[in-house]
Amino acid sequence: MLQDTIGYLGGIFIMISFIPQVIKSYRTKSVEDLSLWMIVATFVGTVFWIIYGFLIDSKPVQVMNIIFGVIVAYQLFLKIKYNK
Amino acid sequence: MLQDTIGYLGGIFIMISFIPQVIKSYRTKSVEDLSLWMIVATFVGTVFWIIYGFLIDSKPVQVMNIIFGVIVAYQLFLKIKYNK
Repeated sequence: MLQDTIGYLGGIFIMISFIPQVIKSYRTKSVEDLSLWMIVATFVGTVFWIIYGFLIDSKPVQVMNIIFGVIVAYQLFLKIKYNK
Repeated sequence: MLQDTIGYLGGIFIMISFIPQVIKSYRTKSVEDLSLWMIVATFVGTVFWIIYGFLIDSKPVQVMNIIFGVIVAYQLFLKIKYNK
């Protein structure tokens, strides 16, 4: 269905969104301009959505949020590691 | 229902996540460490979810994504404005 496709497209873009950020932070080792609370809030929201994915028994919601959560967790690690 | 509450909590955390980032970028005028493509991908994903919210006729999905989209659009503006 069209609406499902549009929903998935939104999820896929959000899911991959932090990949260029992780690559940039990893390469430059510079994370000063990143807000710690932006990353933390994103991570917390994603954890709620992983739980939600299990509660509504939706594999796509589970998988997309677990992948996104891992990427965001790694960004959080880079922020803490490289923050001066 | 519990699952709806958990789903909304996830949405609320994601929705507010960029507020501390916008405040930081606005104050410091320094956006070098932010990935342009992280912001662009987030914005594109959010636009898909706004359309999705109308297709499934869900007011919460519409409202949360429109608010998030405005915040992310402003972050995109700050990134372009202050990028050296």
